[in-house]
Amino acid sequence: MYSFKNDYSEGAHTKILNALIKTNMTQTEGYGYDCHTQNAVSKIKNLVHNQNIDVHLISGGTQTNLTAIGAFLRPHEACVSANTGHIAVNETGAIEYTGHKVITIDSNDGKIVPEKIKEILNSPLNEHVVKPKLVYISNPTELGTIYTKEELKNLSEFCKSNNLILYADGARLGCAICAKEGDLTLSDMCNFTDAFFIGGTKNGALLGEALVIKKESLKEDFRYHIKQKGALLAKGKLLGIQFEELFTANLYFELAKHANEMAYLLSEGLKEANCKFLIDSPTNQIFPILENKIIERLEKKFNFYTWKKIDDNNSAIRLVTSWATKKEAVLEFINELKK
Amino acid sequence: MYSFKNDYSEGAHTKILNALIKTNMTQTEGYGYDCHTQNAVSKIKNLVHNQNIDVHLISGGTQTNLTAIGAFLRPHEACVSANTGHIAVNETGAIEYTGHKVITIDSNDGKIVPEKIKEILNSPLNEHVVKPKLVYISNPTELGTIYTKEELKNLSEFCKSNNLILYADGARLGCAICAKEGDLTLSDMCNFTDAFFIGGTKNGALLGEALVIKKESLKEDFRYHIKQKGALLAKGKLLGIQFEELFTANLYFELAKHANEMAYLLSEGLKEANCKFLIDSPTNQIFPILENKIIERLEKKFNFYTWKKIDDNNSAIRLVTSWATKKEAVLEFINELKK
Amino acid sequence: MYSFKNDYSEGAHTKILNALIKTNMTQTEGYGYDCHTQNAVSKIKNLVHNQNIDVHLISGGTQTNLTAIGAFLRPHEACVSANTGHIAVNETGAIEYTGHKVITIDSNDGKIVPEKIKEILNSPLNEHVVKPKLVYISNPTELGTIYTKEELKNLSEFCKSNNLILYADGARLGCAICAKEGDLTLSDMCNFTDAFFIGGTKNGALLGEALVIKKESLKEDFRYHIKQKGALLAKGKLLGIQFEELFTANLYFELAKHANEMAYLLSEGLKEANCKFLIDSPTNQIFPILENKIIERLEKKFNFYTWKKIDDNNSAIRLVTSWATKKEAVLEFINELKK
Amino acid sequence: MYSFKNDYSEGAHTKILNALIKTNMTQTEGYGYDCHTQNAVSKIKNLVHNQNIDVHLISGGTQTNLTAIGAFLRPHEACVSANTGHIAVNETGAIEYTGHKVITIDSNDGKIVPEKIKEILNSPLNEHVVKPKLVYISNPTELGTIYTKEELKNLSEFCKSNNLILYADGARLGCAICAKEGDLTLSDMCNFTDAFFIGGTKNGALLGEALVIKKESLKEDFRYHIKQKGALLAKGKLLGIQFEELFTANLYFELAKHANEMAYLLSEGLKEANCKFLIDSPTNQIFPILENKIIERLEKKFNFYTWKKIDDNNSAIRLVTSWATKKEAVLEFINELKK
Repeated sequence: MYSFKNDYSEGAHTKILNALIKTNMTQTEGYGYDCHTQNAVSKIKNLVHNQNIDVHLISGGTQTNLTAIGAFLRPHEACVSANTGHIAVNETGAIEYTGHKVITIDSNDGKIVPEKIKEILNSPLNEHVVKPKLVYISNPTELGTIYTKEELKNLSEFCKSNNLILYADGARLGCAICAKEGDLTLSDMCNFTDAFFIGGTKNGALLGEALVIKKESLKEDFRYHIKQKGALLAKGKLLGIQFEELFTANLYFELAKHANEMAYLLSEGLKEANCKFLIDSPTNQIFPILENKIIERLEKKFNFYTWKKIDDNNSAIRLVTSWATKKEAVLEFINELKK
Repeated sequence: MYSFKNDYSEGAHTKILNALIKTNMTQTEGYGYDCHTQNAVSKIKNLVHNQNIDVHLISGGTQTNLTAIGAFLRPHEACVSANTGHIAVNETGAIEYTGHKVITIDSNDGKIVPEKIKEILNSPLNEHVVKPKLVYISNPTELGTIYTKEELKNLSEFCKSNNLILYADGARLGCAICAKEGDLTLSDMCNFTDAFFIGGTKNGALLGEALVIKKESLKEDFRYHIKQKGALLAKGKLLGIQFEELFTANLYFELAKHANEMAYLLSEGLKEANCKFLIDSPTNQIFPILENKIIERLEKKFNFYTWKKIDDNNSAIRLVTSWATKKEAVLEFINELKK
Repeated sequence: MYSFKNDYSEGAHTKILNALIKTNMTQTEGYGYDCHTQNAVSKIKNLVHNQNIDVHLISGGTQTNLTAIGAFLRPHEACVSANTGHIAVNETGAIEYTGHKVITIDSNDGKIVPEKIKEILNSPLNEHVVKPKLVYISNPTELGTIYTKEELKNLSEFCKSNNLILYADGARLGCAICAKEGDLTLSDMCNFTDAFFIGGTKNGALLGEALVIKKESLKEDFRYHIKQKGALLAKGKLLGIQFEELFTANLYFELAKHANEMAYLLSEGLKEANCKFLIDSPTNQIFPILENKIIERLEKKFNFYTWKKIDDNNSAIRLVTSWATKKEAVLEFINELKK
Repeated sequence: MYSFKNDYSEGAHTKILNALIKTNMTQTEGYGYDCHTQNAVSKIKNLVHNQNIDVHLISGGTQTNLTAIGAFLRPHEACVSANTGHIAVNETGAIEYTGHKVITIDSNDGKIVPEKIKEILNSPLNEHVVKPKLVYISNPTELGTIYTKEELKNLSEFCKSNNLILYADGARLGCAICAKEGDLTLSDMCNFTDAFFIGGTKNGALLGEALVIKKESLKEDFRYHIKQKGALLAKGKLLGIQFEELFTANLYFELAKHANEMAYLLSEGLKEANCKFLIDSPTNQIFPILENKIIERLEKKFNFYTWKKIDDNNSAIRLVTSWATKKEAVLEFINELKK
């Protein structure tokens, strides 16, 4: 049964596997001091046109979020996140475990606008309440939506003028950068945030996220934090080799583009069948609204999540495509739907 | 330059790579709910002859230690560890970060004996001091030494009768089990501890440790803790496939045996050259004492750590072998030494 | 300028001061092992008709909340609180600092009903989200409202049947128990919760809250947690003597009754002046809505907080009375208002 | 039965009680914004001849230590303490609960010398081990010994040149400053440390320690940390009034002097009886070595701790005097001993 449940159902792109095989028996330094990691870091610096960043390769998204936020904040400082933000809902209180409150902002599209942060800053701030210090965004958001260059620029300026750290979760960043409707580059991500990560796990790697730290004061001793949180892999080259491949010959973006195209193909098919959507998403997660009996029928042939009850007869489902999604499966899904 | 610096310089055993390739494009459930992980768990249950254990696959050793200890203890409870214990010296305060004190016991051979724990329990225990609750051992220890069946049994009984949790770090467990002088089985490890882990990273896997929880009260909700600490891999099958292979056709033990044999070969060569040792180790880490000028000469051809100054002219070095160590390299090292 | 800003503007009731003087030079054991603490504990056990509770005297409300919640929960477990709850808004993330998320429930009157908790329990609960485990209520709430016996009983049964700990913050508990409209006794508080505290700081003591733990599994080693959080006073008798006095000759309830009566007098005066209220509160905090220009006039003679903007011309203010509030001051306030 | 068990057996000095009574019904601001706290702070600034310090009044010693150290350090940074240090042995892992390791230095007299810290700094420092960042000393130490001006100056310079924070626990600071053999002033304490506290609880107050923060970078947002740790008293004036009195007309030092004198009187009597001491202490804790049968006899008339077994027939006991110790009790003790 074909699955549109998520973008981590398969292993890794062939080029990555081949690179693992090719380098397998060559001895390297541990803990990320290997040549592959150094090379991957160097490629990322070039890609964002900034040689003055620190790049750390970390195994997963929650791990990266908790390590970064735990290192960036003092004990009384808090994060601001959309109520849909991954750190707010799907990380089992990982951020709170590091001691920090996550203040949520209600958001219909998963995005944060300066006005909403301003409301928080305008409430009385004193020693009886936490101090908002870091703004967490995800791009694309957990609802598949993306920030425009203008939106991110505004957010960035707002944060800067309010002495807030802007941090972006890019678990699916490739899909945001490659979205047809998008106008943001990887370089923009670096320019407009203080730190962000480039997701590998959901875009062709076995595991791995590349955390980019731009703001000088956040860089110091960061490797200590990675180690303390248990995130420093002995065989760090496992991450290095993968990002080396992903950023060779544009592979990272090719894979993201494929994921987006498959989602677009699905969307077009769904629209032809007069389907509405919970939200308009230009990336690899889409949220069509279907009749429950149709959902039941589709579930016999495909795997996916039912996301939200709309009314007694209809629900929104979530369909996720990826670098590995087969066009035939997409077409089959649409055919099945149209029956 | 050949390296005896550690046992994580190479990638993974070919069988593991082949398994990754073979399963690569098959869609599976995420977060360890895949068939490979289930199969690996089942193999481990069979190996230790206990179907009533919980097994969790986690990316690395520090990650496993902090997740387990953080989950097992209440805030006022503390660990007891040898002063050489990995949690005491080489995890950047990861255990303290989870809020728990590590009480250390001076130990010459890296091992803990009940008498030393008794001393701690005999000091006044009240609400002004932490409550010792978990005994952390590593087998083999950080000095390469191993516990005998009798020793572990005694420790186990002592812990039981004093209501202490016995937890074993098995980052190099294969080498302890396969040591010529050893008499402990994997099944004994399970019988005599409340929880322990079977190290994969240092015995042929790209990454991964298999945590075994036997004590009933420690099992509840453990997956929440894995997720909260950022240790739940989306592509959990990456760990599942590797342990599936490692526990097929005895591979895990074959690899450990090879590591031990290479260390033994080195030791024999060193002894022939009249070399003494800092400690007598039956596993894959050995600590020969050499003249500094010989060390300098060897360093031109080989990579290894100088472990400890002995006197002005002599130092102990650490040589580590692994599943990947080449016999020729060992022989070359001995030749070079004997020159 | 007379202050209705809060209920901790003055020192302690004379009887308490006298008791401190009388006992001052008598040597006693430290850390709460003195006879006064033992006596206070015994009085509280009698008052709630339960000899099988543990009672701990702790310096303040936030301290009590963080010590109790930090001790009661495992790392992945979370609190549920009204969005107005003290732990949710006014403790500088103290609960998050202990590692636990505070899940908030929107509430207009500061109270929690089982239906709202049910919604949380009905959302998917798995290892990707925190596990709701403790329900935090305050009685009276931060808005001055109180729970009826029926309401607390329902909440209690709901919690029991869902394996949730019910914990009540009683920083102003005297005023809830003594509210004219109230039907809850101190004994009911004990019967219907797993743990709760009886506030002293805001009801005639210099400082001190009496934490009552009823649920057996929450009692173990609690004094370790008090010490670890820095809350174990060397001169514990300072707390013991105060609670001893408060629970002698009904003093605690007399003081709370006075506070309520003064608030009632204020309310009646305000109602006569046709004033409306933000919320109907039967305890010592009231929230009248006044024209801004009247507020400005009153501010010249009295101290109080402006609580909330209602519209461009009107705001709600907060008036707090206490055991120490002078009737003349209340009458003066009303006179000033009616001018 | 008269007690020499500790210096917190009685209440407060009469002047303090009188001040509490006198100010009792005057309304003041909460949370330390009252005039008494402001006045106490101002007196302390004058006493140390430094207007550029921050002073915070906190309820107890452990509370002050955990709040300060928790605020001063980043997650991967550690404290260095003598193995006898209060944070190392008698705070139930309070520092570890804030996430920080306490690295201990073996010390016979409770003091720390730069050479010992240097040893720690000379061991390999990298991301696999915690980063030593704060040196914790207590003056007097837990063994009653004190730092000379020269010793503290050296430590101070060493810390400065190694970028370490020097923090002093002054739970009994009065006795160190007033020791006959001592040459340190309160002003020196301020000059030579980055932060330190002046203990009130053990020198005539009901409770309270005055934390002085001199180093600029440690000051920011400190009140948030006090609140978050539950240490911000609503009736902050309770602390303010006490320190106001203690630093009026030299009371603080008079009380400490009395404590020292009583200890000296005890020591002299003991010496006359040919008694030896575990350690030579010039402050209010002394550690005479007595025959066990004499100890048993004394225990029938006096309360004190037996500190350490010396041999089968002899033990060291601890005798603590204070501002409240009666001369007659001291003489009685000596008489009883000489019998």
